[in-house]
Amino acid sequence: MTYKNYPMVSRVVFGRGSFNQLGDILEPKRLNERAPFIFLVDDVFKGNSWLTSRIPLAYDDQILYISADEEPKTSQVDELVEQIILSHKDRPSGIIGIGGGTILDLAKAISIMLTNEGEAKDYQGWDLVKYPAVYHVGVPTISGTGAEVSRTTVLTGPEKKLGINSDYTPFDQVILDPELTKDVPKDQWFYTGMDCYIHCIESLNGTYLNAFSQSYGEKAFQLCKEIFMDNDLSEKEMQDKLMMASWHGGMSIAYSQVGVAHAMSYGLSYLLGTKHGIGNCIVFDHLEEFYPEGVKLFKVMKAKHNIQLPQGICNELDDNEFDIMIDIALSLEPLWENALGKGWKQKISREKLLSLYKKM
Amino acid sequence: MTYKNYPMVSRVVFGRGSFNQLGDILEPKRLNERAPFIFLVDDVFKGNSWLTSRIPLAYDDQILYISADEEPKTSQVDELVEQIILSHKDRPSGIIGIGGGTILDLAKAISIMLTNEGEAKDYQGWDLVKYPAVYHVGVPTISGTGAEVSRTTVLTGPEKKLGINSDYTPFDQVILDPELTKDVPKDQWFYTGMDCYIHCIESLNGTYLNAFSQSYGEKAFQLCKEIFMDNDLSEKEMQDKLMMASWHGGMSIAYSQVGVAHAMSYGLSYLLGTKHGIGNCIVFDHLEEFYPEGVKLFKVMKAKHNIQLPQGICNELDDNEFDIMIDIALSLEPLWENALGKGWKQKISREKLLSLYKKM
Repeated sequence: MTYKNYPMVSRVVFGRGSFNQLGDILEPKRLNERAPFIFLVDDVFKGNSWLTSRIPLAYDDQILYISADEEPKTSQVDELVEQIILSHKDRPSGIIGIGGGTILDLAKAISIMLTNEGEAKDYQGWDLVKYPAVYHVGVPTISGTGAEVSRTTVLTGPEKKLGINSDYTPFDQVILDPELTKDVPKDQWFYTGMDCYIHCIESLNGTYLNAFSQSYGEKAFQLCKEIFMDNDLSEKEMQDKLMMASWHGGMSIAYSQVGVAHAMSYGLSYLLGTKHGIGNCIVFDHLEEFYPEGVKLFKVMKAKHNIQLPQGICNELDDNEFDIMIDIALSLEPLWENALGKGWKQKISREKLLSLYKKM
Repeated sequence: MTYKNYPMVSRVVFGRGSFNQLGDILEPKRLNERAPFIFLVDDVFKGNSWLTSRIPLAYDDQILYISADEEPKTSQVDELVEQIILSHKDRPSGIIGIGGGTILDLAKAISIMLTNEGEAKDYQGWDLVKYPAVYHVGVPTISGTGAEVSRTTVLTGPEKKLGINSDYTPFDQVILDPELTKDVPKDQWFYTGMDCYIHCIESLNGTYLNAFSQSYGEKAFQLCKEIFMDNDLSEKEMQDKLMMASWHGGMSIAYSQVGVAHAMSYGLSYLLGTKHGIGNCIVFDHLEEFYPEGVKLFKVMKAKHNIQLPQGICNELDDNEFDIMIDIALSLEPLWENALGKGWKQKISREKLLSLYKKM
């Protein structure tokens, strides 16, 4: 058996207000005056000077505001890379993603595609990236996805929704400033936090589990329970703890895998553009037979926070569309093997997936 | 307030038998045929072909067997560096430490001193290292110290026992193979495991605590309780979990600090050469007033595992010798500030330390 040699984030700062250190962190990384830093910022922060006034700009540095309303696409990566190359004299000194999983994944993908030829879709898969990425920094402003710590960047391509999994994907620097999450709307807070919770359930109940993943997964799971079930945490404590839950949850799947919820959620996302966090919730709500305890607690948390999940999102789909979703879901073989073991093909059928999708 | 920008271990492999991957991991790191890999191996493994036959040797690669009976010294680092330089044509491609905290700290220090001028004692302190170290790999064969994950390498110098704390100290690669810990003698297993336990107590009860350190410290603490208190874990589970406890405990102090036990233990170690793990235990046993809950549980674990700590190790000391230990302990200001807060100088006196040392 060969074990993964996992590449870690090179450096991490943790603390409320640590975002103020971004300028000091970037300064020694500037290659020259013609090589800018490109800040990819979630466009919810456009006009929010509390955050934007602290982005350190010099020379040809540029802020690109990006909508996170849709899941990140390979074509979007290619367009942004072209735009960055055409509007600057030199290759950037660094790419800084400031936002949630969508923005962080775009930042990772762009930093890779600035040094690797071809199109982003060519690199969807495992270990296809040839050259080290441009220096890249992740600053999460919403917690849960684990994108800040993982070696993947999940993109929707023309043929598949799949990550660029590579040793060059992880951030060179992460800034964990829980204060940046203070204005996240409640429903998004729940969906993204549940992304973390679902990571833990899938990792802890997976056949790939080992003591490394287990210790991270258990800690993230316990933090999620504190955040979403305890009544005596302050807002700040909840923000701090969710940022760490996301980190540990990401580390848990880093050395393990996700499972049924993610596989099926990728199908929804590919066909309907359903965002990852809410998609995971919509799917997970129907997975009692795979994760009985996890789904039970999920329903308690959903009720406690008065979350109404969308219903009937598959009502209008035809057979062909269901087939597409099922194809996407089943193509994610490592996720199924983790969830159901080596004999997973005997344990799951297209009919089963169809009946589950029809409930959503 | 400025937060630490913590440098992480670049890569980590976890798994039973993962030590077999050492050759594959090193191969692309060889600079040329004249630049050897130097393996620093705890001399308890001399003649143990189960381990040594799996050390991949080629060209001018060399195994140096090192005794871990004494704490690592700055003079020892300087001698080993000189020996390595004199006996090879080129600067090494890498230094691989295979052993416990002593061997791992020596490997880290040697890799630094191969690229930085002067003597190791010149770099004891914080951020004094100028140039990146030679590629270095840590393979723990006993778990607890957290040396595999920290940015320090604790050395006894002519004037002080203090770490070389720097961004270049952490390993480029760590291999966590719990199987390598299978032959650790029981008393060493206990002392080194307690080093981890004491890290957690000092971190979780320290004023430097934040959500980052807390989440790692709580997990390591919980793992220690499982390992040393539960009766239903298998040997393998205990090995796996202690390896992760050490990792998480190290990460917890990475972003926080240790406290009273470590400060006083450094005094013992400097004057009497007491090894770090047992020294921490000897000190911690008398720290009820600082860590009441932690010491209570420590005594339960000590009794459960029939551990007899040495008594009266300070009986023969004179006033001058006590003064030396007290000086060393009090010089570790961050440890006291973490333990007792900014006003620590009002809360601890030389008399207090003297009375504690006299009990040991």
